[in-house]
Amino acid sequence: MARTTPPDANGSHPDISLNRRNFAAAALGGTLVAGGAADALAQAPPQPLPRPRMTQQSETPPLKVAMLVYPGMIALDLIAPQTILQILNSDIHLVGETRDPVMTDVSLPVTPTCTVAECPRDLDVLFVPGGLMGSVACMKKPVILDFLADRGERARFVTSVCTGGLVLAAAGLLRGYRATAHWGVVDLLPLMGAIKADARVVHDRNRVTGAGATAGLDFGLALAALLRGQEAAERAQLILEYEPEPPFHKGTPALVGPERMTQVRAGRVWMDGQAREAALAAARRLGI
Amino acid sequence: MARTTPPDANGSHPDISLNRRNFAAAALGGTLVAGGAADALAQAPPQPLPRPRMTQQSETPPLKVAMLVYPGMIALDLIAPQTILQILNSDIHLVGETRDPVMTDVSLPVTPTCTVAECPRDLDVLFVPGGLMGSVACMKKPVILDFLADRGERARFVTSVCTGGLVLAAAGLLRGYRATAHWGVVDLLPLMGAIKADARVVHDRNRVTGAGATAGLDFGLALAALLRGQEAAERAQLILEYEPEPPFHKGTPALVGPERMTQVRAGRVWMDGQAREAALAAARRLGI
Repeated sequence: MARTTPPDANGSHPDISLNRRNFAAAALGGTLVAGGAADALAQAPPQPLPRPRMTQQSETPPLKVAMLVYPGMIALDLIAPQTILQILNSDIHLVGETRDPVMTDVSLPVTPTCTVAECPRDLDVLFVPGGLMGSVACMKKPVILDFLADRGERARFVTSVCTGGLVLAAAGLLRGYRATAHWGVVDLLPLMGAIKADARVVHDRNRVTGAGATAGLDFGLALAALLRGQEAAERAQLILEYEPEPPFHKGTPALVGPERMTQVRAGRVWMDGQAREAALAAARRLGI
Repeated sequence: MARTTPPDANGSHPDISLNRRNFAAAALGGTLVAGGAADALAQAPPQPLPRPRMTQQSETPPLKVAMLVYPGMIALDLIAPQTILQILNSDIHLVGETRDPVMTDVSLPVTPTCTVAECPRDLDVLFVPGGLMGSVACMKKPVILDFLADRGERARFVTSVCTGGLVLAAAGLLRGYRATAHWGVVDLLPLMGAIKADARVVHDRNRVTGAGATAGLDFGLALAALLRGQEAAERAQLILEYEPEPPFHKGTPALVGPERMTQVRAGRVWMDGQAREAALAAARRLGI
């Protein structure tokens, strides 16, 4: 990944190229990352401009992050943690089975930046987003599972949000670990050797898993604190103004209550059944 | 936008094409939207498969939504509300100045589905995401401002998140309305005739504005309730498992405290200054 050119003696930057880390922090009003950002956002203005100052984060090497992308994934599951990781100064690899763009739930195609074969071998973070039938497909793909098992063996943190936890589990990466996933599928984790934990974000040794979709923000900040310390994570929280106030409280099955949940689950029978079959097949493959 | 082919007498669908609304709801485990979704997610399987049942939402016409997209925007600002609106059954137009892909903070290009000239004239929702220097650029572009002023005059709801509020204000759409925006720029809204309101989501007549980036979830659910009723909004909340639990609480300037905020604001001086200049220029143009 391209790095920002170091500032010269006057503190100005010779390059004005768009850089992921700078772009993110500057676009969000951040102060975490080195200069060049304002230029990038202004789309290569014709003359030098004042730039945000460097801060301590720019002195640390970027985090090496691999985020799996696959057809059917939930864009929000990817974007929420990605936004936080980028503010922390990360080299983010979007890893696809191939380099073909994959379609997301909101019809936004995402183009992988590398294939599973090209992904760096040693990572700070390995991450899998959710996307129910897309996740189920991943649970059956040796090329995906082998990739995750390999990188997961050495990664500093092995992580997921939503139904991405099923994919980690199918790769054997959650055996003996406390973990969570979207409420619709969390009960399937123990089939693959994980210990189901009742929390929005679950951290067990170097595994960090989040509940459904929006848990990606809470997950992302918890992971940020593990990676860069709480103060850096709090700065990301401020930049993103993350002090949530949901207008109502029906975000979990317990809050919704058994009557409505019976209806809701009835509407998911086919999909959840497919996920269960894939979990059972993965368990057989893992010898569980 | 493509519509789902109506079910035949047996309730099955002849088409198995990927449909935004079905895809979103099915991918997220939803039960809100008509059949065909499972097929779409399974990527056109060779034989007919059971499908999630239709529910009441599928009987209502899709919402007509236009979301402005522009270089420098924050992907999360777009994706969070878009995910919610899609679950509600919406035809979503991503409206660009041209059809050229625009780059976002997380280096994910977004391709507009139509230009400002091609966007439908009558909308249920007109939405502007944030992206600081990108927003500032929009505040100076007559083609964007004229588009917003025109569609905003007739739209059922005129909305924004984060620094998108500056763009609405620059188009004259927040004059005399209570509104909010990202904490870094919210004080600029009154320069353009808006009444700054101290809330995460502000609803004044048909204007609904959200605070910084992550407020897009709270904003999206509040808007969902206005559009489809609270029960439908609560279903979206459950699908997305939105019962947030931030690991710490430094998401607003008040929580961070004056000392650290002085540092933070010092790092934003250049960008916020550009936003202020653009706001003052817009005010002159609006005759304020």
